Amino acid sequence: MVAENNFFSSAKMVTKTVDLRSDTVTKPTETMRAAMASAEVDDDVLGNDPTAFRLESEMAKITGKEAALFVPSGTMGNLISVLVHCDIRGSEVILGHNSHIHIYENGGISTIGGVHPRTVRNNKDGTMDLDSIEAAIRDPRGELVYPTTRLICLENSHANCGGRCLTAEYTDRVGEIAKEHGLKLHIDGARIFNASVALGVPVDRLVQAADSVSVCLSKGIGAPVGSVIVGSKSFITKARRLRKTLGGGMRQVGILCAAALVALHENVAKLETDHKRAKILAEGLNQIKGLRVDIDTVETNIIYIHVVEGSNISAEKLLMNLEEHGILMMRESSSSVRIVLHHQISASDVQYTLSCFQRALTGGHDENNGN
Amino acid sequence: MVAENNFFSSAKMVTKTVDLRSDTVTKPTETMRAAMASAEVDDDVLGNDPTAFRLESEMAKITGKEAALFVPSGTMGNLISVLVHCDIRGSEVILGHNSHIHIYENGGISTIGGVHPRTVRNNKDGTMDLDSIEAAIRDPRGELVYPTTRLICLENSHANCGGRCLTAEYTDRVGEIAKEHGLKLHIDGARIFNASVALGVPVDRLVQAADSVSVCLSKGIGAPVGSVIVGSKSFITKARRLRKTLGGGMRQVGILCAAALVALHENVAKLETDHKRAKILAEGLNQIKGLRVDIDTVETNIIYIHVVEGSNISAEKLLMNLEEHGILMMRESSSSVRIVLHHQISASDVQYTLSCFQRALTGGHDENNGN
Amino acid sequence: MVAENNFFSSAKMVTKTVDLRSDTVTKPTETMRAAMASAEVDDDVLGNDPTAFRLESEMAKITGKEAALFVPSGTMGNLISVLVHCDIRGSEVILGHNSHIHIYENGGISTIGGVHPRTVRNNKDGTMDLDSIEAAIRDPRGELVYPTTRLICLENSHANCGGRCLTAEYTDRVGEIAKEHGLKLHIDGARIFNASVALGVPVDRLVQAADSVSVCLSKGIGAPVGSVIVGSKSFITKARRLRKTLGGGMRQVGILCAAALVALHENVAKLETDHKRAKILAEGLNQIKGLRVDIDTVETNIIYIHVVEGSNISAEKLLMNLEEHGILMMRESSSSVRIVLHHQISASDVQYTLSCFQRALTGGHDENNGN
Amino acid sequence: MVAENNFFSSAKMVTKTVDLRSDTVTKPTETMRAAMASAEVDDDVLGNDPTAFRLESEMAKITGKEAALFVPSGTMGNLISVLVHCDIRGSEVILGHNSHIHIYENGGISTIGGVHPRTVRNNKDGTMDLDSIEAAIRDPRGELVYPTTRLICLENSHANCGGRCLTAEYTDRVGEIAKEHGLKLHIDGARIFNASVALGVPVDRLVQAADSVSVCLSKGIGAPVGSVIVGSKSFITKARRLRKTLGGGMRQVGILCAAALVALHENVAKLETDHKRAKILAEGLNQIKGLRVDIDTVETNIIYIHVVEGSNISAEKLLMNLEEHGILMMRESSSSVRIVLHHQISASDVQYTLSCFQRALTGGHDENNGN
Repeated sequence: MVAENNFFSSAKMVTKTVDLRSDTVTKPTETMRAAMASAEVDDDVLGNDPTAFRLESEMAKITGKEAALFVPSGTMGNLISVLVHCDIRGSEVILGHNSHIHIYENGGISTIGGVHPRTVRNNKDGTMDLDSIEAAIRDPRGELVYPTTRLICLENSHANCGGRCLTAEYTDRVGEIAKEHGLKLHIDGARIFNASVALGVPVDRLVQAADSVSVCLSKGIGAPVGSVIVGSKSFITKARRLRKTLGGGMRQVGILCAAALVALHENVAKLETDHKRAKILAEGLNQIKGLRVDIDTVETNIIYIHVVEGSNISAEKLLMNLEEHGILMMRESSSSVRIVLHHQISASDVQYTLSCFQRALTGGHDENNGN
Repeated sequence: MVAENNFFSSAKMVTKTVDLRSDTVTKPTETMRAAMASAEVDDDVLGNDPTAFRLESEMAKITGKEAALFVPSGTMGNLISVLVHCDIRGSEVILGHNSHIHIYENGGISTIGGVHPRTVRNNKDGTMDLDSIEAAIRDPRGELVYPTTRLICLENSHANCGGRCLTAEYTDRVGEIAKEHGLKLHIDGARIFNASVALGVPVDRLVQAADSVSVCLSKGIGAPVGSVIVGSKSFITKARRLRKTLGGGMRQVGILCAAALVALHENVAKLETDHKRAKILAEGLNQIKGLRVDIDTVETNIIYIHVVEGSNISAEKLLMNLEEHGILMMRESSSSVRIVLHHQISASDVQYTLSCFQRALTGGHDENNGN
Repeated sequence: MVAENNFFSSAKMVTKTVDLRSDTVTKPTETMRAAMASAEVDDDVLGNDPTAFRLESEMAKITGKEAALFVPSGTMGNLISVLVHCDIRGSEVILGHNSHIHIYENGGISTIGGVHPRTVRNNKDGTMDLDSIEAAIRDPRGELVYPTTRLICLENSHANCGGRCLTAEYTDRVGEIAKEHGLKLHIDGARIFNASVALGVPVDRLVQAADSVSVCLSKGIGAPVGSVIVGSKSFITKARRLRKTLGGGMRQVGILCAAALVALHENVAKLETDHKRAKILAEGLNQIKGLRVDIDTVETNIIYIHVVEGSNISAEKLLMNLEEHGILMMRESSSSVRIVLHHQISASDVQYTLSCFQRALTGGHDENNGN
Repeated sequence: MVAENNFFSSAKMVTKTVDLRSDTVTKPTETMRAAMASAEVDDDVLGNDPTAFRLESEMAKITGKEAALFVPSGTMGNLISVLVHCDIRGSEVILGHNSHIHIYENGGISTIGGVHPRTVRNNKDGTMDLDSIEAAIRDPRGELVYPTTRLICLENSHANCGGRCLTAEYTDRVGEIAKEHGLKLHIDGARIFNASVALGVPVDRLVQAADSVSVCLSKGIGAPVGSVIVGSKSFITKARRLRKTLGGGMRQVGILCAAALVALHENVAKLETDHKRAKILAEGLNQIKGLRVDIDTVETNIIYIHVVEGSNISAEKLLMNLEEHGILMMRESSSSVRIVLHHQISASDVQYTLSCFQRALTGGHDENNGN
């Protein structure tokens, strides 16, 4: 099914790299580099960088919020957002048991911010049942022994659930629950552009119910560095201060914002192709004996590949085998690996990847894969 | 089935109170009061109180640990224990999603201690699946984005699971997992005496695998105030300091310890009766139309009573109705109430309670229950 | 000047103890013990203990505040007070560089509460210069880099400054500064009764400008355990919750409150005598060659004794020497020791102490002091 | 003394800006922009960015330490350093009362890190008396009530003390004290290159005694963004994790590091000129009636200008007046302003600044200064 010969003729001196570890690995494009080289900048801690201002204005508009703030990373974006909403000692946040904030951010909201997390089980599609969310909200009458629920967090698209997208309707309903109980709603929108493209719904509609959103610029849309958080003016004023406290205030940051503006303008449009290629890749992988991919769950650019029991290779070895051919992936568990597509993965890379998987699973066929 | 007449003849001027809200409500006995009145005391913050020393020595012996420390409450006992084991910034604790520490202690381990909680689902019997515990332990190789797992917490007996008891074998196996991964094991043994009596296993055997245990003296065994935490000498040295930091260092605390010693000597033996009466009460309640009690889960002194759908009364109203007859309980949810027995609930109280429930559920029969 | 012979005739078998380490070392009196033995109590965590209620009401009245809360220690009283006033992340408190909160409470306001302390130099009389306080208040315009000043703390009487008293007028002026800048004022009134007696000014007048006060019951007035914090109703509501979080909620705490009520009623009146004896002791000590006491600073029950350079004994040895005669003191530095008087130090104890010091400083005279 | 006419002939349409607010305001040079445009980069969170690696290696070498880590800001550099050294709950840091960490970093070490600060008075030259440092170290025997001293912080050059430099000898002696007591020594070396140039002592010698140093790249040496922290390998391993927790992990950060490498190579040499110009400016200002500059304290690139009492203008007005002529400064107090020189302030800018001050102070002479 794949013309392997072309790829493997010179496998011993492979220089080709197909980096599928994450969509954070993209290199800045020439346009971005040019933009950085000519960016108009000033000291943004003193509040004067015009390019930061332009990026923040644009992101506020895209998300339909009053104001925005550039931060060095998605982790800081989420940390600041949770801490601003939970600025009073004794706060609790409701979030998915499988959410990025709970699993991959060092527990910073507690260990740095003193916020108590209360998890609700994420369904396979990234949602949490609405009645489970509601049941997790602390009864204010029990305040002597209960922390105070102040925030609900959603993640869209949901990385650990395979890049699944939350609909605007679902988000609205969570927003209603939040409002009813006087809570805030934060969306970890690290990949909100992917969700928007996949659902065919504008970003501002998807996050309409949210009080704050963090949007990553260095994931799918390929900026070298940074995220933006958006919300009300008063939210952003508090966020700016907390950014300084955490050490995220940067001086001539317009350099990075210039690249991010290019990313916004040029790369959002490329996400659709990433999603198509992810679908193609997922389908191809699922046809390989020994692998299983839940095709229906591949809505955006993330694929979880399961090595089926009785396969002739472990996930660990599969990872090493493909690395020898320049294909980099992330190990998820003893029997699964994760692949993330991005605009620097070409159609040809997809075919090359498929053929390498094919070889690894069938074994023997690849003479270069001796160890 | 109950001789109601005796109880209700003068219901309008009820002075009788049957306080089933918790086993924390007991009044100190005459022996305790005498012991407090004559206790030999000194300044315990300066380390000199002989009665505190006696109590702590005795508790260390009962639990089979090196050392012990008296603290004002079970909440402080758990807070100190978790914080001592998790004394390095960036720590995570694995604990039951339904555990007292997670639900009823204000989230203090995070909001005061900066410890990140990771919950594992409690089974109905208070256990957590061993493989779920193991899966929740963070892979040290992921330390760039993961907090560091440092502690596993168990609760025995498990309050929110209806006072169910963890066996020594189960605890041992959790202890093995902890050891294997270099973690500590803390047991919230607020009602460890109840578990010991119900299982017929000595306390020291039940907590053998634990690095620390908090034991409440003002629950089932009826001391007016206080808990004791036990562990290694170095654990207690750190705990003593943290107790001072939190403000739990008390001066002539031997007063309270004297009562606690009496509680230990006189009341542990009474728990068996509490459990028998709980069983009788549970069975009686379960026979009342409109109520449901899961009899098999009543292993110790706690009963959860469910008002079945279609019953002629809500949990809320049931609570108010019984309060009029001097019976105090805790509301658990819109359809359930909690009852806890203790040594100041007599066989007669049990019968009285049953009869009041009977009347409330059948309605009308009790002319005094007009409003 | 002192009839030494009586004291020293049987020094080798000294059983007499004169405990001058602190006024926290007093033993409960017979009246207190009787009150504890007969105290009417209930579960105070559930909010029902009548004796706790009586004590809290009385303390609110004495201090002229709306509400009060019993806590296990002065440290918890201060910790809760600071944390309630500084409940928003990013708060700063202004306090004396020599204050008890800054020096002797484990840094809990930061290490447990995340509050940033900003110290102002304490003058020898326990005051801080008003303009220094004002200069330490952060300019809100600098909020990007400054924490937010939310609280000023005073200490009256001031332990580390020798028990010196702050006048009502001084406190009022600090209160005005606080009000002007929208800050709260907390008084660590661990020994506010001593200040009140020494100044001849009622407690409520002394703390009139304060938003909260912590008052210790187990120092000069001799209750076995506990402090009370007072403030507005909303302050106490928040304090009650935080007390639970910290683990300071105690069940049948009326036992301790009963003793505290006796302490209030019987022992405030004895403080004047303590102060007189402190003066006599200070003057006597100052006449001993080799010692220096700054007599004018002895306003209440605390004496700092300096071993003058060239004396024939070090503070360390002086301490050990006197301990052999049953006199217990606190070492302050390599050249000073601290003495605190209380109602269980008699006139005879004062004379005995003086004679022991005399012997220790002159040396040789005391044959029993051979080692 | 200054040829004013040239400057003021078209003052009404001033476009010239002399930005003396801070040395953080410099714009990236053409060389830096070119370096950024061509930087080889990769995902640095995954640990692969080669330019970040080059910068970190070079900084480790310059400072004589094992390892280094790029961070977004000096604030994060200090925050991480303090938190790594004080990773155990209950830690205390000794630092100058006038230090940047204590005054200008939002109190983050407490409000985010739970570290208790203990300040020692900074002398005018930025030092703290050695015996005061030693006296501030907590006696480990008092650990029941004391936090644990774990760290001493110095600042070199010392911003709030006017850019004064600490000698290698002084730093060594503080290092000896630290070592003797088992403490760590951190140097806030935001402007360590200025100190090195001014003292004529290499950076590695100046920080020889330190366990960690934070060095700012976006101050005097003019990189657009970032600081580097240096220390032992194990320190940097912990720092890398904490950087992720705080949200300072950045993806293709080599872009910024490329500019920082240029800054290192090209701009350190320019600092000497900055210092000379600062001296000239300081002397010129001091000759203006109504101003006072303590010339001897101008060792590097910072000048504090005091408006003497009785002058015809306030600091506030002076600031506004000069801003009209494009000269930007920082207000320090009601009677002083701060000026910081950098490589984008020319000799002509210095003369222009002097002449504007002259006009502002003499008043009237400048017809364009009417409003």
